[in-house]
Amino acid sequence: MADAKIRLYVDQPLGVGQPVPLNADQANYLFAVMRLGRGDAVLLFNGRDGEWRGVVAEAGKRGGVLVCDAQTRPLQMPPDLWLLFAPIKKARTDFIVEKAAELGASRILPVQTRFTNAERIRQDRLQAHAVEAAEQCGGTFVPEVCDLQGLDKVLDTWPAERRLLWCDEHMVGGSSALTGLLATARGGPWAILIGPEGGFAESEQARLRGLPQVVPISLGPRILRADTAAVAALVLWQAALGDWQ
Amino acid sequence: MADAKIRLYVDQPLGVGQPVPLNADQANYLFAVMRLGRGDAVLLFNGRDGEWRGVVAEAGKRGGVLVCDAQTRPLQMPPDLWLLFAPIKKARTDFIVEKAAELGASRILPVQTRFTNAERIRQDRLQAHAVEAAEQCGGTFVPEVCDLQGLDKVLDTWPAERRLLWCDEHMVGGSSALTGLLATARGGPWAILIGPEGGFAESEQARLRGLPQVVPISLGPRILRADTAAVAALVLWQAALGDWQ
Repeated sequence: MADAKIRLYVDQPLGVGQPVPLNADQANYLFAVMRLGRGDAVLLFNGRDGEWRGVVAEAGKRGGVLVCDAQTRPLQMPPDLWLLFAPIKKARTDFIVEKAAELGASRILPVQTRFTNAERIRQDRLQAHAVEAAEQCGGTFVPEVCDLQGLDKVLDTWPAERRLLWCDEHMVGGSSALTGLLATARGGPWAILIGPEGGFAESEQARLRGLPQVVPISLGPRILRADTAAVAALVLWQAALGDWQ
Repeated sequence: MADAKIRLYVDQPLGVGQPVPLNADQANYLFAVMRLGRGDAVLLFNGRDGEWRGVVAEAGKRGGVLVCDAQTRPLQMPPDLWLLFAPIKKARTDFIVEKAAELGASRILPVQTRFTNAERIRQDRLQAHAVEAAEQCGGTFVPEVCDLQGLDKVLDTWPAERRLLWCDEHMVGGSSALTGLLATARGGPWAILIGPEGGFAESEQARLRGLPQVVPISLGPRILRADTAAVAALVLWQAALGDWQ
């Protein structure tokens, strides 16, 4: 039996001796594409029970069964960090979700702002991207991708204790992101807010400035695309306050 | 005359009264696509003379002439930071070049490692991506994209004074990138080295470990894709030692 290399996200509970039935897509991938057979092993995770080695017990054309053997890694939760962003073009939105999952955001909230073009998103497709990124990066957790909500509505019920890192292109050349973050006490829930390509409307800016939870930062002297800004803010936050320490 | 919004990279020298002849592609973009006409203004940069306002003096179907009016921004050079990376799939390689230009790398060097799949790159296409990113992000400088070179050959003539930030997936969970960078003296030339998806070969790792210029860092507890790692390293370096301060 070779070492398990393939990582697969499943919905079912995982534990010693637990059988994991496969659907047709999963069976096709493991047995037709990757050519696994009885006795071969796969790494499984469901976002709750850590990572387990699953051994192929039945392999069929339209299904199959894996049986959990041993836990290979415990559940590792990312820090309590949400990413709020205004959806942009399809490829760049996909990219933001992939990177947020890889970089350890705990929840991804697409928000509609005054200058956001997208009126809807494919939540199911974005969630699938988050799953794929978790499979790829060795994570044992998959961030939830929420459906598109209005920024105003999200701010109406913003939790008092959750700080909000606000990255706005108008702050180009402002005070350093890193210095500000490093001076902040660690711990407690956070969120990152990335504006749309056209920036925030005046009324949105005024509202954000008035929120005590908001921490504005600059991301350097060049104007970053929204997808670059999302990755940059996630990286700085993780390095200064998150689990990269 | 409306405010100039379009930014265009040109090859010609820029200065007061300097005429800038347009080629057919540029004329088509400005006059057919963007519907500019005589007297309209465009922002021009060539990577050497800063940003200038150019006013349309002649507009034709296959060409035209802009005349430089006034400098709108001085040349802003990025820090002396090279990015070395092993080319991956086309879309992700394009992405790395775009992000490196946006995030202020001064030179981009695709390198072939033992586990790099790509045997060639389209240098001209990658250079065009860097130009487009500079047009988009308000930069006045365009990083040079070099042709693909072997990593071994690049290291054979590595400058004694250029430090090399080595981001390797084997260092997952190692010492913090940020702490290490912040403890480093600022100033002097640097480079970032991003490995291929399969990591570096043993012999390459040994060689890198033996180089006094090499500074190894970890990029957190999850395994990052090569394109994510490139952006993460550029962001951390700019925030800790570069022009984001």
